[in-house]
Amino acid sequence: MSAGFKETRTVDQVLNEAIKYVRHRPGVIEVPISEALYRYLAEDVVARFDVPGFNRSAVDGYAVRSIDTFGASPTNPITLRVIGFMAVGDEPGKFALNPGEAVEISTGAALPINADAVVMYEDTRRSGDYVEVLRPVPPMGNVSRRGEDVRAGEVMFRRGMRLLPWDLGVLASMGVYRVRVYSLRVAIISTGNELVEVTDVPQEGPPPGRVINSSRFVIEGLVKSLGFDPVYLGIVGDDIDRIAKTVEDAIKGYDAVITTGGISVGRVDYTIKAVMKLNPEYVNHGLSIRPGRPNSIAVVNGKPVFMLSGFPVAAATGFDVLVRPILLHMVGGEDEPRPVVKGVLTRRVSTPVNTRSFVRVRVYLGKDGGVYVEPLALTGSGILSTLVRGNGILVVPENREGFDEGDEVEVTLTRPIYRENA
Amino acid sequence: MSAGFKETRTVDQVLNEAIKYVRHRPGVIEVPISEALYRYLAEDVVARFDVPGFNRSAVDGYAVRSIDTFGASPTNPITLRVIGFMAVGDEPGKFALNPGEAVEISTGAALPINADAVVMYEDTRRSGDYVEVLRPVPPMGNVSRRGEDVRAGEVMFRRGMRLLPWDLGVLASMGVYRVRVYSLRVAIISTGNELVEVTDVPQEGPPPGRVINSSRFVIEGLVKSLGFDPVYLGIVGDDIDRIAKTVEDAIKGYDAVITTGGISVGRVDYTIKAVMKLNPEYVNHGLSIRPGRPNSIAVVNGKPVFMLSGFPVAAATGFDVLVRPILLHMVGGEDEPRPVVKGVLTRRVSTPVNTRSFVRVRVYLGKDGGVYVEPLALTGSGILSTLVRGNGILVVPENREGFDEGDEVEVTLTRPIYRENA
Repeated sequence: MSAGFKETRTVDQVLNEAIKYVRHRPGVIEVPISEALYRYLAEDVVARFDVPGFNRSAVDGYAVRSIDTFGASPTNPITLRVIGFMAVGDEPGKFALNPGEAVEISTGAALPINADAVVMYEDTRRSGDYVEVLRPVPPMGNVSRRGEDVRAGEVMFRRGMRLLPWDLGVLASMGVYRVRVYSLRVAIISTGNELVEVTDVPQEGPPPGRVINSSRFVIEGLVKSLGFDPVYLGIVGDDIDRIAKTVEDAIKGYDAVITTGGISVGRVDYTIKAVMKLNPEYVNHGLSIRPGRPNSIAVVNGKPVFMLSGFPVAAATGFDVLVRPILLHMVGGEDEPRPVVKGVLTRRVSTPVNTRSFVRVRVYLGKDGGVYVEPLALTGSGILSTLVRGNGILVVPENREGFDEGDEVEVTLTRPIYRENA
Repeated sequence: MSAGFKETRTVDQVLNEAIKYVRHRPGVIEVPISEALYRYLAEDVVARFDVPGFNRSAVDGYAVRSIDTFGASPTNPITLRVIGFMAVGDEPGKFALNPGEAVEISTGAALPINADAVVMYEDTRRSGDYVEVLRPVPPMGNVSRRGEDVRAGEVMFRRGMRLLPWDLGVLASMGVYRVRVYSLRVAIISTGNELVEVTDVPQEGPPPGRVINSSRFVIEGLVKSLGFDPVYLGIVGDDIDRIAKTVEDAIKGYDAVITTGGISVGRVDYTIKAVMKLNPEYVNHGLSIRPGRPNSIAVVNGKPVFMLSGFPVAAATGFDVLVRPILLHMVGGEDEPRPVVKGVLTRRVSTPVNTRSFVRVRVYLGKDGGVYVEPLALTGSGILSTLVRGNGILVVPENREGFDEGDEVEVTLTRPIYRENA
C-alpha cells in the first residue's frame, strides 16, 4: 500500500476540467437592498430615470443667467437683484429669473427657472437685496447636470457583480429597492468516527482519540465570507453507504456540497468511495498542493461536490484553491483583490517541486523599518493555530522548491502586520 | 458670508483629539461561534485543555516502539509483528505494544499504549501479519504531540481581535462554543428637506428638487462591513430642534451616532447647530479632506456623533477617515490590510495643497501588460456612480498638489482590476 495518489493534477488543470461539468445555476432570491450587501447580482440593473433628476447647484452661491455675468470683474462688478433663496429640496418653479436677477442657492438645490449657472460666494459681494458679481460664469458653470451621475437607460450593474456598500447607495438613488441576487446554498457534511460536536464536549476536553469537529466552522465561515449560504448537515461516521446517502440527498437539496474527511488513500477513503457510487460526471482525487493534497472534487448532476481534507488547515487551503473559484464561477462572480505585502524571509522555506505550497507566515515590521516574513508552518495540516498566530500566507509556486533566507517574497495578508519586533 | 471653514484641521489632528473624549465602551453580547464571524472579541480566550489532547500519528504507517527500529536499513530490515489497526477515533487503549510489535495506523489516529513513533508506509514492506521496517525512526518521529496546536492555559485570542473563518475553527477545537463579542450599535439619522425614501419614489423618479436618500444605504453597508450593527432612525427635516432631539435620543440608546446632511457653512448647517445644543465635550467642524470637507465630529457623553456630508461620496470618504478609526478604537480593533496596486497614471491629477484628496480611479491592465490608473472623479462629491464604475481610490497626501501623467501611483483597490483595455 502506498500513500501516493495515482495522479495529483495541477490546480489549474483540475479547475479547467471540473468547471466544464458544473452546469447547475444556483437559486435566485429577491431581497431589499439593505439585505443585499456582499451578494452577487442575478440580473443586470438598468436606470429608469436620470440621476440627478434636475440641474442642481454644485456650490453655495447665487444662481444666475450666465449671460448677465459676462464682462464682470473685481474692478467692474455687475450688480444683480437677489429675489430669494433656493434651499435644497425646493422645487425649481419656486423662482423664475428675469434679466438682472439672481437667487441665492445652496449646494444641491435645484436651479430656479431661467438660471443656467451659479456664481460661488467667493466671486460675489453681497449688499442688502443686491449682489455684486466679480467674475463671469459660463453656461452650466458650477452646475451638476441632470443625468450626470446616472443616465436613464444606462446599464449600471451587470449580473455577477458583488454588491459593495456604495453600490447599495447607487441602487437606491436609481429608485431600486429590491434586487434579484443569487442564493448559493452550500451543504456541509463532516465525516469521521473520531469527530464530536463542540456542543457535546465536556469541560476537560474530548475523550482520548476523539477530535472536536472544527473544520465545520472554518468552512461555514469561508462560505459566508464569499456571500454564500452554508447549511451544516452534521457528522456522518466512516460508513460508505451512509455517506453516499447523505451526499446524494444534499445534492438534491442544495447548489453545492462540501464534505470533510475520508479522502486519504487506503483504508480511510470512505468519502471518495461513497461519491463514486453516485455516478459522477467528473471526479478528481487529489491536488498537487500542500497542505491539502487529498482535496478532491466530483461533479454530480451538474453540481460540484468538494471533498476536503479532515484536517482544518488542509481543508481551508482546498477551499481557497478549489471551492472558491468554482462557486464564484457559478454566480458569474470575480475573484476579489487581496492585500499583499513584500518582505524579507527570515528563514529558508523548502517545499516539494511540482506542488503549490501554502506556508503560513508571521509578517512583522522590524526595528530597521523593514518588513520581515517568518515562516510558521511546522508539521503540516493539523496545526490550525498557525492561522491564528500568523497573519499571512506565502504561496510557493509549482516551479520552485522554496525560497532562501533573505529572499524578498510576496505574502497575502490575512491580518494586520505586527508592529512589535520579532 | 464665506464658504470657508474657520479651521479645517488635518485628519490626524482631529482623530487624536477626538479619541481622547470617546470614553464610552460598547455593549457586549454572548453568541455561538457560528454567529461570531467578523465580530470583535470582548474578552481574552484561554485554552482549557491541550489540542490535540493525545499524541497522534502525523502520517499513514505503523506505530512502533522507536527503540525497536534502531539499526534498521533497507538491506538489514527489522521485522515486527502487526497486532492490529488503529483508526482515527479509536481509543489509545485499544492496543498496548510489547517489544517486537507494531500497529498499523492512520494519520490522525491516537498512538497505542507503549508506542512512541510512527514509521511511514514508504519506509516499510508488509508481508502478512508482519512488517519489515527499512529505516529507524527517532522517539516522537512522525507524531503530532499532545498540545502541539494549542497548550492548556495559553491565551490564544486577545480582546479586540476580529474573528476570521479559521479563528472559529480554533475556538471550536478549544471547546469554546459561545464567545463574548462587542455589539457596537450605530444609529443612522438622515437629515434634509430634500430627502425621500427609496420606498416612496414613483416609477418615474422623485419629484424635481427632491433626492432619494441613498447615503443611508452606503453608511449602513459600511457599518456592517466593519462588523458593527447599524440602526436606521429615518429622515429628519431641516429643523434644528427636531434634529437635536433625535440625536439626543440616539445618543441615549446607541453606542455611536452618524448623521448625514446639514453641516455646510452658512444657512444649511442645521445639524452642527443642533449638536452644539447638546453640550458636546468635543466638537470639530470640517476636515481637510476632499471630497468631504464638511465632515465633522462631536463627542457627547463620551459617545461619538459623526456628522457626515449629505453627499454620499463625501459621506463615504468621511466614514473612511473619521468613523472607521474611532469605531475600531471603541472595540480595541485594528485597521485591516487593504489590497493595493501600483500603476501608471494616465492623466494629471490636481488637488489642493494641505488637503488629503481621495480620487476615484479606474485601474486596468493595458495591452502592454502594464497596470494603468485613470482618474474618474469630476465635479466632486455628488457623483456616486464613480464608485461603481471605478475600482480604486488614489489618495493624494496633504503635502502634494497632485500627480503628473505618467507618475507611478499606489491605489487602494475596491474591486478587481479590469482586464479589458482602456
